[in-house]
Amino acid sequence: MTAVERPRTIHRVRVGYGDTDQARVVHHASYLRYLEQARVEFLRDNGLEYGTWEKKEKVGLPVVELSVRYRAPARFDDLLEIETWVGKATRASITFVYRVRCGIRVLADATVRLACVGLEDGVLHRVPDEVLRACWGPAHGV
Amino acid sequence: MTAVERPRTIHRVRVGYGDTDQARVVHHASYLRYLEQARVEFLRDNGLEYGTWEKKEKVGLPVVELSVRYRAPARFDDLLEIETWVGKATRASITFVYRVRCGIRVLADATVRLACVGLEDGVLHRVPDEVLRACWGPAHGV
Amino acid sequence: MTAVERPRTIHRVRVGYGDTDQARVVHHASYLRYLEQARVEFLRDNGLEYGTWEKKEKVGLPVVELSVRYRAPARFDDLLEIETWVGKATRASITFVYRVRCGIRVLADATVRLACVGLEDGVLHRVPDEVLRACWGPAHGV
Amino acid sequence: MTAVERPRTIHRVRVGYGDTDQARVVHHASYLRYLEQARVEFLRDNGLEYGTWEKKEKVGLPVVELSVRYRAPARFDDLLEIETWVGKATRASITFVYRVRCGIRVLADATVRLACVGLEDGVLHRVPDEVLRACWGPAHGV
Repeated sequence: MTAVERPRTIHRVRVGYGDTDQARVVHHASYLRYLEQARVEFLRDNGLEYGTWEKKEKVGLPVVELSVRYRAPARFDDLLEIETWVGKATRASITFVYRVRCGIRVLADATVRLACVGLEDGVLHRVPDEVLRACWGPAHGV
Repeated sequence: MTAVERPRTIHRVRVGYGDTDQARVVHHASYLRYLEQARVEFLRDNGLEYGTWEKKEKVGLPVVELSVRYRAPARFDDLLEIETWVGKATRASITFVYRVRCGIRVLADATVRLACVGLEDGVLHRVPDEVLRACWGPAHGV
Repeated sequence: MTAVERPRTIHRVRVGYGDTDQARVVHHASYLRYLEQARVEFLRDNGLEYGTWEKKEKVGLPVVELSVRYRAPARFDDLLEIETWVGKATRASITFVYRVRCGIRVLADATVRLACVGLEDGVLHRVPDEVLRACWGPAHGV
Repeated sequence: MTAVERPRTIHRVRVGYGDTDQARVVHHASYLRYLEQARVEFLRDNGLEYGTWEKKEKVGLPVVELSVRYRAPARFDDLLEIETWVGKATRASITFVYRVRCGIRVLADATVRLACVGLEDGVLHRVPDEVLRACWGPAHGV
């Protein structure tokens, strides 16, 4: 019997000029946009079209906690690779884990925790099956 | 008989570090955020709380056209003054005019045209009286 | 004799969640980031690596004027196509022209004029040959 | 003998329209801009003009680590209060702590750790006295 492989994706992002600041490196807030794009692509690659799903279900997955460790600066025009996987996924919340690289250099590590809330009322929901399935991969049979 | 004075406001903005880019000046897109803040404050100063109004009326005032002429660069920590007035306001659209200064230096001129649309359906509406009143000032008696 | 074809490029952008605003459409300022990415890719496709060039020459191409006409809203997760070409390129400035589409719908038209300035001193320079060549395409033989 | 009071500041921020996303709340990345503004004002209030200092010393204080806990959503036009203080300040790094409130509601807690690096070479420096003095307040006599 083999261990079940959790899905991992690589999302590529080209650093824009406006993503930098006057220290001539990528501003720390720009990474959150990259992580968000990587997350949406991760879910799509694993069967969940987030936009369609959010609209249909009238729930969303807002960020409730995040941490980033910046290890080395990214620069304008760098082609970044955002490796993305799920560290933990329960009925209460989902924690995405990211590693940002430029070539072989690790530029940043991050975790972003999401909860599930109603879009109209802001009330906390249990994380639905279809989200957990996208997070854990098909082999887990949620 | 004297000419009726149209309202003008001055909105002050402190340039943030993340507003700059690697050319060590304020990135051109950052100005749009300053103009938007100035517009919201102009409307508030002239009797229209935009957020409350939008929520109540279920219509919004999206930007349909804008132009900016950048004359001199703004820099981190500059204290900018955004002079704001209405160039034209009809039932079809409203054109805000802006002059951005730092001290006596003019950094940018801009115009932003807004239309009125339903937030649910995106359908074009006539610009309501209460918006025109805020744009033209009380003396115009719309 | 045939007319010389000016270069045109199509840059694809996926709309991020953070690019939207509470009207549930893409915020008007987000487009400036898309246009900037499209411009950098246009120059790369036509032989100018902007980042490398800026660093080597110590001059930049800041935006001195822009105008955008927003025709229809873009939404989260839309895959936009930014068609990009040069409307005018002289020793004094370069004007890029853009058409933003989602499928066959035109969402926005824009023009962005750039000048050439020294990065250290902010002094206006003549637009260099290698930039004009990238703008006009190889057939023009600047 | 009394405990020495560490400086605390309150920075007020008005939420802009473009700071929101289609879930009709402030996008999580927008908070980083608010925290950065609050940090610059904290340093100014405690005697360090960050922009002037960075330019003169040719060193900067980039973010090397951050974490945010989002407790309740902020909305368009909310007037936020960012309480800011220094949790830890050593020769190696400085940790700012933030509490974001709207009225009496706590919306977010955050910590941001900064290091001191050369702007030209990116080399790590010891945190200078004048920065530590601004962090700890005058009573500490660094």
